[in-house]
Formats: sequence, structure tokens, C-alpha cells
Amino acid sequence: MALKVYGAARTRTVRTLWMMGELGMPYEHVPITTQDGANLKPDFVALNPTGRVPAIDDGGFVLSESMAINLYLAKTYGGALYPATPQGEARAWQWSFWAVTEIDKTIIDWALHSSVLPEAERDPKRARTARLEMERPLHTLDQTLARVPWLVEDRFTVADLNAASVMYRALWMDLDDKPHARDWLHRCWDRPAARAARTMRE
Amino acid sequence: MALKVYGAARTRTVRTLWMMGELGMPYEHVPITTQDGANLKPDFVALNPTGRVPAIDDGGFVLSESMAINLYLAKTYGGALYPATPQGEARAWQWSFWAVTEIDKTIIDWALHSSVLPEAERDPKRARTARLEMERPLHTLDQTLARVPWLVEDRFTVADLNAASVMYRALWMDLDDKPHARDWLHRCWDRPAARAARTMRE
Repeated sequence: MALKVYGAARTRTVRTLWMMGELGMPYEHVPITTQDGANLKPDFVALNPTGRVPAIDDGGFVLSESMAINLYLAKTYGGALYPATPQGEARAWQWSFWAVTEIDKTIIDWALHSSVLPEAERDPKRARTARLEMERPLHTLDQTLARVPWLVEDRFTVADLNAASVMYRALWMDLDDKPHARDWLHRCWDRPAARAARTMRE
Repeated sequence: MALKVYGAARTRTVRTLWMMGELGMPYEHVPITTQDGANLKPDFVALNPTGRVPAIDDGGFVLSESMAINLYLAKTYGGALYPATPQGEARAWQWSFWAVTEIDKTIIDWALHSSVLPEAERDPKRARTARLEMERPLHTLDQTLARVPWLVEDRFTVADLNAASVMYRALWMDLDDKPHARDWLHRCWDRPAARAARTMRE
């Protein structure tokens, strides 16, 4: 039975669809949305108690949380997509948690109030506050990528995929004063698997 | 050279101090605070570019993000504190990300506006909103712990430590309608290493 990926591409599931593309494995996509509450229907909650997407079902093993799913997929099926050393692995965890704690909610707030919402509903002050909150983490990222092309070891790994996937909205952010972070972000999202996931989303 | 733990016990560093207690390893504690900006001083940022606490220095390997640090410590030095199977490991990641995405910021908001701030500065509406946002994740946790005593495999692991440590403030939350989550939370925080970390904090 093929691995199942639950969640519509326009949700955080895009992160896992990108990973599936990198793996080149066959899978079944069940595009559950959150907007109509399908994620909270009894049959989905019975399968995935968190009721969140993305979730995967790998031969009966059901997992949620996009970052955890991608780490699991990379480690189980991804070969060089997963770091080779214990330190590299810990660093991939660090960047994945960094993306969630420092970027995830803030960048959505920035995107909503700078471009996504209808103009009349945007609050420019919230957009500015969100952008300001991201200044320090973006600086950290840029400084790191000034020294190395990828976040962990010497190649694209799940660390890059997880961090860049959370930063999707930053593709439209002026990052000219963070050129290393900007170039890395575009390098990640220019990968064929990323482009394919993005096409599913848009 | 002993492993170094950076961060005052009253910050999220308490999570890592708890882990160090579980490991029973000697370590050096450098109680950097965030309130006086010591975490942003050049010497600390040179060591730990994120400028965040907790951070550890394990023989020159510097790592930040409390959840990632605890996973690394458990896997490297913790024996049975780290899950034994790939599925158990992925589940420990899931609960660690769950704690950060579903609980961390919300529970601090709840605590601030229900008890921590001076009474005149509290916004009861924010406390209520925060508690409401936690209802679904707490329900998920309670349902899970109705079936098993620990989150992963059949013993206390880093999954329990990470999730319970993020939920510290819930020790003061009325969880009588979530008895399994409540009892688990107290079972975790009643461990000697947790009590010791809490004493350092309070």
C-alpha cells in the first residue's frame, strides 16, 4: 500500500509534498482541507488524533507535524537528504525548531497584512511588527549562509527543506540586505520537487 | 571539559536543566539571562549565533533550541530516555513539535494574563482566548494518555520530558476534565530531576 499524505497543498502540507517529490516515491495524496472542517471529521480524527494536516500514513504508522514528518521521511527513505552524523542530525533538528519558533507564525502574519488579505482588511502596523520580529532570525540565517551554502553538512538536506518550506512567503519579501539567506531560499525553492509542490499549491 | 548549559533557570533553559538532571552527568551551568540582554552580547553571539537560550556547548559543538538540545542529549547520553525504534523516534519528534506549535506561546499568554502579571495589567479576555486555543491540543493529549501511561513506548522518554516541560504553567491550570493529561503532567514534574530543575527556577 502506497504511503498516504493527508492535507491540501495550500496548507502546510506543501512542505511534505515537496519532500515526497525529493524522494521520488509513489504516494497517494488525500487533499483534506481545513477550511471546511474536514480535518475534524470523526474518520480523520480517528486516524490522526491531532486533527491537523499534514499527516502521513506509512503502512499503518500515522504521524503528524510537518517538520517531524519530513525528518521521518528523510531518515527512512531519503538517503543523503538526512544528515550523516549525530551533530548534523541535531543541527537539522535545531533548524527545524528554529523555523517553527522564530518564523512560522510571524511570517504568516506578515504575509496576511502585507499582501494576502484584501487591502481594506490589512493592518500595516501588524505587517511592520511581524517583519521587525523576523529581523534577528533572518540575520542569524544570513550570517550562517555567508559561510556555507547549506545549513547542515555540504549538501541540500532536510534541514534546508524544512527551514525553506516554512519561509515560503519570504520569496516575496525584500531580502536585499540578507543576500545569503535570499539566494539560499531561491536555490531551495528552485529545485524541481519544490517547483512541483508550489504548482500544486498555486 | 564538562558540557556547558547556557541560560538562567527561569528561562526555557529549565527544560534542559531537567534533562541534565535525568542524565546525571556533571555539567557547567552558565546562567545567562535574557532580561539584561546578556544573550545578545558579542561573546555569546559569537558562540551561539541565534543569541537564544538555552544553548549547550558539548566539547565545541554548540546547539540551540531547547527541544533539539534535549533530543540530542537524550540520544547521545540518555540510553532508554530516547525511543528505541524509528517509529518511536518520529513520535518523540512529533510531540516535541506539537508542544512548540500548539502549546508554547499560548500557555505563556494564558499564564501572563491569568496570574503572572500584576493584576491591573492582566487582560482576562486574552487569558480566556489562550485557554480556548489550548482546548483541542489538550484534548488530544488527554485522549492519548487515556490509553497509555507515556507518550512514546512504555516508559518516560524525551517525548514526555519535552512536552511536559513546555507545559510547566499547566501545573496551575484546572485540568479536572482532562484527568489523564493532568496526572501525566504531575507524574512528569514529580520526578526528582524535574523537582530539582523547578527548585532552580523558583
